Amino acid sequence: MGTSGRLVALEGVDGCGKSTQARLLAAAVGVEPTAEPGGTPVGAALRRVLLDPGLPDLDERTEALLMAADRAEHVARVLRPALHAGRWVVTDRYSGSTLAYQGYGRGLDLDDLRRLLSWATGGLAADLSVVLDVDVAAAAARAAGRSGGGETGAGGADRMERRGAAFLQRVADGYAALAAADPERWAVVDGSGPVEEVASAVRATVAARLGEPPGGWR
Amino acid sequence: MGTSGRLVALEGVDGCGKSTQARLLAAAVGVEPTAEPGGTPVGAALRRVLLDPGLPDLDERTEALLMAADRAEHVARVLRPALHAGRWVVTDRYSGSTLAYQGYGRGLDLDDLRRLLSWATGGLAADLSVVLDVDVAAAAARAAGRSGGGETGAGGADRMERRGAAFLQRVADGYAALAAADPERWAVVDGSGPVEEVASAVRATVAARLGEPPGGWR
Repeated sequence: MGTSGRLVALEGVDGCGKSTQARLLAAAVGVEPTAEPGGTPVGAALRRVLLDPGLPDLDERTEALLMAADRAEHVARVLRPALHAGRWVVTDRYSGSTLAYQGYGRGLDLDDLRRLLSWATGGLAADLSVVLDVDVAAAAARAAGRSGGGETGAGGADRMERRGAAFLQRVADGYAALAAADPERWAVVDGSGPVEEVASAVRATVAARLGEPPGGWR
Repeated sequence: MGTSGRLVALEGVDGCGKSTQARLLAAAVGVEPTAEPGGTPVGAALRRVLLDPGLPDLDERTEALLMAADRAEHVARVLRPALHAGRWVVTDRYSGSTLAYQGYGRGLDLDDLRRLLSWATGGLAADLSVVLDVDVAAAAARAAGRSGGGETGAGGADRMERRGAAFLQRVADGYAALAAADPERWAVVDGSGPVEEVASAVRATVAARLGEPPGGWR
C-alpha cells in the first residue's frame, strides 16, 4: 500500500513491445503512461528533431545531450510533480535508454553519461527499470514494419531505426549488462510471448519489487 | 602569421551588437562568421525550439542542455574541422553565453555548467571571448525593436528576449565577472560607439591577443 510515488521505466530495444507494455502496466497501476523522448511539449519538439530522417546524423554527444534535455524537462514538468504527489509513474524509456543507446550503442563513456544524467534529472533515478528481453532480429523487423506510424509518427524508418542489427545487438547487450550490474533497480522480463502473458510477468515483477500502487492493482 | 586555427567568440547581452561585430571581424579575418545556437542544420532546428514563443518556459537545466547539444554539434561539424585545417573561426556566442545566461542569469551552478560544457565540446575552449560592453537598457530596447527579424527570424519578442531587464543585468554582470576572472581568455570592448569604431577596437584587441590570421588582416 504505497503512499509515496514510484518511478517505473520500461526499457528495451526498439520493437521489443515496451510501449504496449508501458500502456498495460500503467492501466494496471491506474495512471496514464508517459514516454521519452517526447513526454512534454518541448520534448515533443525535440523528438521530431531527434528522429527527423531529413537531418544529418547527430554527433553522439549531441544526441546524448538532446536525450538529457528531453529528460530534464520530463522530470521537471511531469515526473517530479507526480512523484511528489505520491503517484506512481510508468514511463516508456528513462535514463537506462541513454546508457544503453548512447553508451553501449554509440560508445560514449558510461561514467560521463551517468554524471550527465544525474545532473539533468537532479538525481532522480528510476525505482525499477524493466527490460523486455526479445530476439533482436525480430524486434528490428517489428520496428521496421511500423513505418508510417508507431513510435515515430513519421513515414519510413526514422534515424534511430536505420542503424542496423549490429547497433541494436550492442544496445541489447548493454541492457543485459546494466541489469546484471544493478539487480536492485533492474529486472529482465522475457518479452517474446503473447502480449497478455508478458504483461502479467511485468506486473508480477513490479509487484514483487515495489509492492502495491496507491489504490491497489486494477 | 598563425598557421594553426584560433577560435574567437563574440559575447554579450542580446542587442549589444555582437552579430554585426562577428560579421565584421570575420570579414577582417577572411572567413564566414558562424553562430550559436543554430550554426548547423540540427542546431537551426534546436534554435527554433529554444526561441519558440509558443512553447512553455524551459526548465533551466533543459535550456542549458539544449544549448550544450547545439554546441556539441557545432563543435563536431563546424568548429573542429575548421580549426584542424588551420583556419580561424569567428562565432557569435560560444560557451561563455551558457555561463552568463544559464549560470549568472538563471542561477545554475557554474562548476556544473563548466563540466557539462567541457564534455559537450570535448574540451574545446575559445582562444578569446570578446564581450561587447553596452548599456543593458539600451541593448534591451534594441533587441525588442528587432521584432519580426534579427536573430530569431520570428515575429515578436522570442522567449529569450521576454525575460526583462533584471535578467539581462545579471547576464551582463556575469560577463563582467567571467572576463575579470580569466583575463587571458577574455577581453571587454566598449560596444557603445559607432559600429566602425567598435569594429576597430575588436580587431585591435584580437590582433593584440592572437596575432595575425592566416593570410593577414583584410
